[in-house]
Amino acid sequence: MIALGLDIGGANVKAAMIDVKVGELLTSTRYFPIWKRRKDELAKVIREMVDHLTSGKRLSGAGITMTAEVSDVYFSKREGVHHVLDCVKSALEAPHLSVLTTDAKLVSIADAKVNYLKVASANWAATGWLASHFLKKCVVIDVGSTTTSIIPVLNGKVAAEGETDFEKLKNGELVYTGALRTPVSTIVNSVNVDGRTFRVSSERFALSADVHLVLGNITRREYTTETADDRGKSMRESLARLARVVCADLSMLSKDWLTKMAKYVYGKQIEIIANGIKQVCYRFEGRGTIPTAVTAGVGGNFLAKEAAKLAGFKRVRSLDEFVQGSSLTAPAVGVAFMVLKTLGGANWKVIDRLKVKS
Amino acid sequence: MIALGLDIGGANVKAAMIDVKVGELLTSTRYFPIWKRRKDELAKVIREMVDHLTSGKRLSGAGITMTAEVSDVYFSKREGVHHVLDCVKSALEAPHLSVLTTDAKLVSIADAKVNYLKVASANWAATGWLASHFLKKCVVIDVGSTTTSIIPVLNGKVAAEGETDFEKLKNGELVYTGALRTPVSTIVNSVNVDGRTFRVSSERFALSADVHLVLGNITRREYTTETADDRGKSMRESLARLARVVCADLSMLSKDWLTKMAKYVYGKQIEIIANGIKQVCYRFEGRGTIPTAVTAGVGGNFLAKEAAKLAGFKRVRSLDEFVQGSSLTAPAVGVAFMVLKTLGGANWKVIDRLKVKS
Repeated sequence: MIALGLDIGGANVKAAMIDVKVGELLTSTRYFPIWKRRKDELAKVIREMVDHLTSGKRLSGAGITMTAEVSDVYFSKREGVHHVLDCVKSALEAPHLSVLTTDAKLVSIADAKVNYLKVASANWAATGWLASHFLKKCVVIDVGSTTTSIIPVLNGKVAAEGETDFEKLKNGELVYTGALRTPVSTIVNSVNVDGRTFRVSSERFALSADVHLVLGNITRREYTTETADDRGKSMRESLARLARVVCADLSMLSKDWLTKMAKYVYGKQIEIIANGIKQVCYRFEGRGTIPTAVTAGVGGNFLAKEAAKLAGFKRVRSLDEFVQGSSLTAPAVGVAFMVLKTLGGANWKVIDRLKVKS
Repeated sequence: MIALGLDIGGANVKAAMIDVKVGELLTSTRYFPIWKRRKDELAKVIREMVDHLTSGKRLSGAGITMTAEVSDVYFSKREGVHHVLDCVKSALEAPHLSVLTTDAKLVSIADAKVNYLKVASANWAATGWLASHFLKKCVVIDVGSTTTSIIPVLNGKVAAEGETDFEKLKNGELVYTGALRTPVSTIVNSVNVDGRTFRVSSERFALSADVHLVLGNITRREYTTETADDRGKSMRESLARLARVVCADLSMLSKDWLTKMAKYVYGKQIEIIANGIKQVCYRFEGRGTIPTAVTAGVGGNFLAKEAAKLAGFKRVRSLDEFVQGSSLTAPAVGVAFMVLKTLGGANWKVIDRLKVKS
């Protein structure tokens, strides 16, 4: 039995394949910025990724989730959901093709098209569903390249209350900040360095990836988004981009100064995420404290973890401790397991035997 | 005697020509987003604009100021200043070609290249210089498409203390927010509508131009920047862009709701500018209160004016009351007058006689 999970985001397409017989979990991520008016290439990209993962093996079933419909290449969510599903349909040959809903259920493509708001940006539900099998009570903090999902799990069930991104932005379950693609100008209005406050430019001069590269939170290889100025990903180029945020350049500001500035921005980003965590957890206070935070995503180790600590969590664990290799593609892995379960092949002991490749 | 002033910004090139004999002030603005990797076309654009303004008349002299060097098409300010000046030199034929410094003086192109930080983003100095001829004590608030300059005038002289944009971001003389090009995600972290707070997306989904179009602060014709999603400038399209800022669409949010959201963002932008005004004016409190605020720029009437009022000013006047037609291209007009003065043709009574065309 071979199950595929696809998570089609606005910036990245992620895939996970579980081969039960071989005992293998294969994951794959491809940077595909759909907002660059390249939506017509989506079907091709999916086909290539799946061909690469399956290498000729026949899929038993596939599950799809998405956030790409948020992109402004689509005028409406309906248009976005329909286009993504059409692309998947034309790209995949699988007997069972289903789509994740915000209730952590799988529905047919036809149903998904009718109830498009139920499947729009539902990918967090798969992450929560996956975590809920290991911890009965926890909050999952998935810090991706662009956004952060904060998913409460209670009594072994996903207890998120927001169904749409709009509701989640209100209740804290979605915090629109990420480890790579977030413009520094949206994280801070000003920076404080050596006790002095500087306003910042509102241009997209530098990204969170520059902040985290300068601070050593990510390596050059992990800087998987395009740079803001189309220049390279060296330390010097990242520092120059940060300098421009305060309308300066490398002849005016030292590496030391710019590193302090990066630390300030990092601190603010941790605060922003921690505020979301606190808002989500506060709802459940009457039902006892949530004991554990589970981190995931490319910013799991340095943003989710630090934000969880700032929000007061003593126990912080990575999703990788439960399903090795799942943290960076958690929704895709979750959907793949969900498909397996639907097909009758779900066995949680499978997980311990899985060899991980990516 | 015919003098030209050029203000070469990152988003717009502005030109002003004064023909003393005919008694005419001609101004022109062209949207030219240099960050779109089109810097090689700059010389051509300047030539076309000047040819159009002069229609064959011979210039007595020309003055240049710029902010385009801030753009990330240039790695450093030095590179930016040099490139802009080279373009001007190749585009213009004028016996006297000079460059504005932050001391409101004109220097040669050769000097400007050596002391490039003295001419980088100096355009506010010309605006202040112009205003200082009419009011001995005032603060000029020039809200452009992208940025806001706050220029104190004391004893009939520009009394700004920041020389570079970096210093100005610190002391309030530069507030990096504008009437058209500013992403909504850099103005607010959240919006409050009907007593409920919603986080916002950090994407560049909507611009300040959408906010001000929806509120009727600008007309469709005044929406001179490109839209964030390359779609049109209708009310419906602007509303759709605003909806996307909270990850929604027009099927989810009403025009009424989105107008309230726009009002909230507008209010925040006024506050941001008012804070800059207060910071600048606070410095001079020991020397007596500044009695008058002078507004300029495309956001002069609805942002500069409202921010001045919020900062406590009772007397708010437009630069147009002093030099008709100068408000939208104040630095270019200022530099043109400065050139006239250098050439011995400056006569402030000229101003009253000027017929304005644009």
